[in-house]
Amino acid sequence: MKMSARNMLNGKVEGVTVGKVMASVKIRIEDPNMITAIITQESVNELDIKEGDVVKAIIKSTEVMIGKE
Amino acid sequence: MKMSARNMLNGKVEGVTVGKVMASVKIRIEDPNMITAIITQESVNELDIKEGDVVKAIIKSTEVMIGKE
Amino acid sequence: MKMSARNMLNGKVEGVTVGKVMASVKIRIEDPNMITAIITQESVNELDIKEGDVVKAIIKSTEVMIGKE
Amino acid sequence: MKMSARNMLNGKVEGVTVGKVMASVKIRIEDPNMITAIITQESVNELDIKEGDVVKAIIKSTEVMIGKE
Amino acid sequence: MKMSARNMLNGKVEGVTVGKVMASVKIRIEDPNMITAIITQESVNELDIKEGDVVKAIIKSTEVMIGKE
Amino acid sequence: MKMSARNMLNGKVEGVTVGKVMASVKIRIEDPNMITAIITQESVNELDIKEGDVVKAIIKSTEVMIGKE
Repeated sequence: MKMSARNMLNGKVEGVTVGKVMASVKIRIEDPNMITAIITQESVNELDIKEGDVVKAIIKSTEVMIGKE
Repeated sequence: MKMSARNMLNGKVEGVTVGKVMASVKIRIEDPNMITAIITQESVNELDIKEGDVVKAIIKSTEVMIGKE
Repeated sequence: MKMSARNMLNGKVEGVTVGKVMASVKIRIEDPNMITAIITQESVNELDIKEGDVVKAIIKSTEVMIGKE
Repeated sequence: MKMSARNMLNGKVEGVTVGKVMASVKIRIEDPNMITAIITQESVNELDIKEGDVVKAIIKSTEVMIGKE
Repeated sequence: MKMSARNMLNGKVEGVTVGKVMASVKIRIEDPNMITAIITQESVNELDIKEGDVVKAIIKSTEVMIGKE
Repeated sequence: MKMSARNMLNGKVEGVTVGKVMASVKIRIEDPNMITAIITQESVNELDIKEGDVVKAIIKSTEVMIGKE
């Protein structure tokens, strides 16, 4: 399946913190960039997301802001 | 000002397409990763965003999804 | 690829309106429900989205609100 | 009050999981489609959302992505 | 209908810019605060949003970030 | 750093509820308006967000909906 989401960054999971409803997943996309993804605890279970997994961080382009000095 | 948004990626603007209300900004964060940011035409004007600018792509962590093969 | 996004609704494209940067896509998921998706003009082109296409409307669960009478 | 949000899907609550801050609400919109909504625990309390409730799942159209085989 | 969205700010429309797909609406919530809402051109038409209208700006709490000096 | 996000509202923190992954922050922007921001527990810690802090609530304009009677 091809997706309309414009941003797909390859990375490796470096940490997972699971709460009752939500979970935080740390994805190293390359040094020094780390992405934090907040997804449901249910998704972490169903996709069996764990340290060392090769994953994609997917972001709809309307969700990206720009900062400029 | 420090921001709660967890994801800030350094990049360089490689292209800007401006419509009447919205604009698309292409940001090279590093080879081979390109980020597309959809922001307002007004923001492009006020921040004077143009090709070659050094910028940050900023993403709230609740907006990041994960894909896994 | 499996995705963390919890909501995937099967539907058929009933209309596409394309602007310079953004596009509106009408997806019939079943009578009487129609979904409007605002995606980039670039995505419409790359995925060649047109009337009659069978597609999925994908929504991260943190983006869903609830209304109750 | 009329809302700008384009997507309102009628459904029935089939499950609620409440954490300290967030809550997950499962809404059956029709077979076989289930919607997961992540809202605040506070909203679940204030709207008294519980199994069997008739509700609307509300989604801003800029939050909808499209997948196509 | 009661909504799960936690943030509803009363304001008055001070300007509307309409593109082919999207529209920008400026809402004065009180001096000196102005809210910019990007909604569909279709919503502006259906709700007949125009200068002087008394409206609510509605924001899901997961979409709010915090900045601190 | 200047940001593309169009909406920055000055306020004071009136309450913080911290869960394992997410946190809810109540920000008084002026009477009678209160903003609820759901951010990560990690952000609350790193920015040391606590009652009485002067902060900005930051909202991308694509995340704002409009309601009209």
